[in-house]
Amino acid sequence: MPIEYELGTKMAKTVDILIAGGTILTVNHHDLKLENGAIAVDRDTIVALGRKEDILPEYRGRLTIDVPDSIVMPGLVNAHTHAAMTCFRGIADDMELMDWLNDYIFPAEARNVDPELAYWGSMLACAEMIKSGTTTFSDMYIFEEETAKAAQKAGMRCLLGEVLFDFPSPSFKTPAEGLACTEKLIRKWADDSLINIMVEPHSLYTCSPELLKASKALADRYHVPLATHFLENKAEAKQLKEKLGQRATTFLRDIGLLDDRFIAFHGVLMDEEDIRLFADHGCKVIHNPESNMKLASGVAPVSTMLEHGIVVGLGTDGCASNNNLDMFEEMDTAAKLEKSARLDPTVMSARTVIRMATCNGAKTLGLDSLVGTLEVGKKADLCIIGMNRPHLTPLYNEYSHLVYAVNGADVDTVLINGKVVMRDRKLLTIDEDEAMERVREIALRVLRSLSS
Amino acid sequence: MPIEYELGTKMAKTVDILIAGGTILTVNHHDLKLENGAIAVDRDTIVALGRKEDILPEYRGRLTIDVPDSIVMPGLVNAHTHAAMTCFRGIADDMELMDWLNDYIFPAEARNVDPELAYWGSMLACAEMIKSGTTTFSDMYIFEEETAKAAQKAGMRCLLGEVLFDFPSPSFKTPAEGLACTEKLIRKWADDSLINIMVEPHSLYTCSPELLKASKALADRYHVPLATHFLENKAEAKQLKEKLGQRATTFLRDIGLLDDRFIAFHGVLMDEEDIRLFADHGCKVIHNPESNMKLASGVAPVSTMLEHGIVVGLGTDGCASNNNLDMFEEMDTAAKLEKSARLDPTVMSARTVIRMATCNGAKTLGLDSLVGTLEVGKKADLCIIGMNRPHLTPLYNEYSHLVYAVNGADVDTVLINGKVVMRDRKLLTIDEDEAMERVREIALRVLRSLSS
Repeated sequence: MPIEYELGTKMAKTVDILIAGGTILTVNHHDLKLENGAIAVDRDTIVALGRKEDILPEYRGRLTIDVPDSIVMPGLVNAHTHAAMTCFRGIADDMELMDWLNDYIFPAEARNVDPELAYWGSMLACAEMIKSGTTTFSDMYIFEEETAKAAQKAGMRCLLGEVLFDFPSPSFKTPAEGLACTEKLIRKWADDSLINIMVEPHSLYTCSPELLKASKALADRYHVPLATHFLENKAEAKQLKEKLGQRATTFLRDIGLLDDRFIAFHGVLMDEEDIRLFADHGCKVIHNPESNMKLASGVAPVSTMLEHGIVVGLGTDGCASNNNLDMFEEMDTAAKLEKSARLDPTVMSARTVIRMATCNGAKTLGLDSLVGTLEVGKKADLCIIGMNRPHLTPLYNEYSHLVYAVNGADVDTVLINGKVVMRDRKLLTIDEDEAMERVREIALRVLRSLSS
Repeated sequence: MPIEYELGTKMAKTVDILIAGGTILTVNHHDLKLENGAIAVDRDTIVALGRKEDILPEYRGRLTIDVPDSIVMPGLVNAHTHAAMTCFRGIADDMELMDWLNDYIFPAEARNVDPELAYWGSMLACAEMIKSGTTTFSDMYIFEEETAKAAQKAGMRCLLGEVLFDFPSPSFKTPAEGLACTEKLIRKWADDSLINIMVEPHSLYTCSPELLKASKALADRYHVPLATHFLENKAEAKQLKEKLGQRATTFLRDIGLLDDRFIAFHGVLMDEEDIRLFADHGCKVIHNPESNMKLASGVAPVSTMLEHGIVVGLGTDGCASNNNLDMFEEMDTAAKLEKSARLDPTVMSARTVIRMATCNGAKTLGLDSLVGTLEVGKKADLCIIGMNRPHLTPLYNEYSHLVYAVNGADVDTVLINGKVVMRDRKLLTIDEDEAMERVREIALRVLRSLSS
C-alpha cells in the first residue's frame, strides 16, 4: 500500500489549483452532475474534472481548495448592467419612469459622471458581483475605459461598450467621437485575456439610423457584438412606431443590424413577429426581470423566445433600477415572474434559468467558447456555494436550491480565469473598504449637485 | 469634566441592554427616523429611544451593543408560513399545482409528518427566520404543539394554529378532535409571553360550513383570530362558486366569519366586491407574492385592498413553494410584482412594503399593541442590519435599501422580547448544526417514503 501510494504521488501531475469535494454542476450539454467531484486548474484553464477518487491520484495542486458540503458551478454571467451606476443606487425609486429619468438620473449623470465616478462605481460593482458569484459581466455606460481598468484590477471577465447617442455624452461631443472612442477601446484591449469590447448604440430612440449603421460597420470591421436597448416599454414602442413608420425589428433588419452578433437588452414589447425575425437571424436577447418589474415596463415574452430557439441571457440592469447586482436573486425572479405572468408553473424551470445565467449568457456575449460551463479546456471561471446553511437545508435538488433558495451571500469562493478572486468571502483583488469609501464620497457630491 | 461625568454616571438608570449608534427606523405613525440613535431595553420592553446624545447620559446598559453603520428596525413579521415544511424545501418544483400536491406534497406529508418532523422542521425554520430578521411568525400546520415548543426554545414570537380539515390529518381523526386540539393549545399557552394561538380551518374547499362555524365559535370563545386560505387561485375560486352557489365572501359573511379577527391568506382572486366586504368588516389579508408567483396562482390585488383601507400583512408561505423564509426578499418581490402587474412604478413604495412587513403585519395578527414598531412601551423585537457592505453602498435612502438591496444575510443581530437571539450572525438560542442534522435525517426518510 505505501508503495502504491508513492507511485501514485510520483505520477501525479502538479497543477496550480485543485478543487476537491462538493457537487459539481457542469451545466454542460448533458447537464452532467458530479457528486464528490474534483477540478484541476492549471494557469487559466480547467485541465481535468471528474470524481474526486479519479482526479486526486492524478493531480497534485499547488493550492488545494477543499469544498465539502458545497456546490461548484460555472461563474454567473450578468449579461446586461451599467456597473458605474452603483453610485446612484437607491437615489430615487417608486416614481414614474420619465420623472425618475428627468428629475434624478439624467441630471445626476450630467452633473457627476466623470472618469473617477466611472472607475470607482465600476470597482464597487465588481466587488458586489464577485461577492454574489458573477464572473463575467456585460456593460454599457460612459467612460468605459475606466470600467475596463476597474475590471482588469478586479480580475473580472467582461464585454464592454461606450454608450453612443446622437447627442453629446459626458465623454464625447459628437457621435463620431463616440465611435472613435469605441474603436480605440477595441484596439487597446484586443489582446487582453479578460476585457472584451463591443459597440453599443444606446437605443433606437436616441440614435439616428446613420449612427446605428456606422455602429454596425465598426462592429463588423472588428467582428465584435453590437448591443442596444430594445423595446423596453410601451412608451418606447409607441415612439419608435411613430418615428420609424414601420416595425422596429424590420427597420433593424433593413439597415443590416440583425445577425448572430446582435444583442437586444430587455425586449419586453417584442411580439411573435419580432421574435420570429430575431430567431431567423440568430439575434440574442438579454432578459432583465427585476428592472423591468421595478420600472413597471411589463413582462418580456421569454418563454416564447425560448420556444423559437432564441438564446436568452440574464442581466440585473444597473443599480438605479434593481437595486443590486445579485444574479441569484435575478434567477429566482426570472423563474417566478414567468410562471406568474403565463399562469403556468411549469415554464422557466430552475434548470432553464441556470442555463440562462451561465452557458446561454456566455453564448449571448460570444464568450461561450471560453466560459459558461465547467468542461476540460474551458477557462476556470467558477463559483463555490456553501450549502451547510439553515435556509439551504435539506438538499433534495441542487438546481432548485440555486434558483429558489440561495442568495448571493451564500457564495464562498470565486475563481476567474484560474485566479482565486474571493476566498471564504474575502475579496483578494479588490480593497472593498477603499471602493466603498470612494463611492460614498462621490455620493455626497451627487447629492450636493441635485440640491444646488 | 470628570465630576460632571461622574454625576452623569451616578444618575444614569441601569437597564438590561443599550443599543447605541446607527439609524433607527421606528416605523411608527410618523415614520420617525433617528440618525445616530439609541434604544434602552429593560427586561422585555423598550424603555427609552432617541438620539444617542440624549439617551446615553440617562441610561447605562448591563449589555451595550454598538451598531455604527447599521439600521435598527422593528423585527419582521412573517404573517403566513408553514414552518415545518422546511423539511420539504425543494422536493418538487416547476410542476402543475395538482401534480405537485398529489404526487409529492400530500404523499410526503401523509407518510412522514409526525411530531419529530414538526418540531425539527419548525426549529430549522426559526433558525432561518431569525437569521433573516424575522421576529414574529404566523403558522398553520400539523402538530402545532411541536411548533410552539420549537418557537419557545428559539425565543420567537408567534401566532399558531393546528390546521383543521373535514378529513383526518396526521394529528387528529375527526374535525372535533382537531378543534379539541386547538382549544387545548389555546388554554395551554394562554399565559405565554411569546406563543399565541389562533383557530385555523384550512380553507373553504376542505372545511364544511359546520367546521367553519365551529371554528368561529371557538375563536370567539377565547377572543383569538381565525385564519384560513382564501381564493388562492382560479381553480379554487371556480370550485367554491360551484360548491357554495354564491360569492365566497358573502358566504363567509352569512355564516358569521367576517370580522376584525378574520385573516385571509393569499386572496389572489378577490375582486372589488370581495374587497369592499372585507373592508366593511375590518378583515385582514396576508399577501404571499413569491409563493403566488412560483405556483402561478396570479397576482393579488394588493393596491386595491390598500386603497380600501384593508390592513395587509406579508408572508413567505411554506418552504415548499418559495423556497426560503427570507422576508427581505419577499418585500423586494412584493414591491416589484405590484408595479409590474399594475404597470405603475409608483404603487407599493418601499415605505408601504416595510409597513406591511412590520406594523401592519403585527396588526393583522392582533399583536400590534406589543410589536411592529420601535416605540417606548413596546416589546423589544428588533433587527439590526449592517450597512457597511458593497451591495448597500452608497446609502441615499434607508427604506429603499431595505426593500430593494438588502437580503436576509445582511441582518447581524436580532432581539426578541428583550432577549438577544442572534449576535453578529451567531444564533444564541438554537443549535443550528443540530437542527440541520435532524432535518437532513428526516429528509432521507421522506425520500425513502416517496420511492417505496
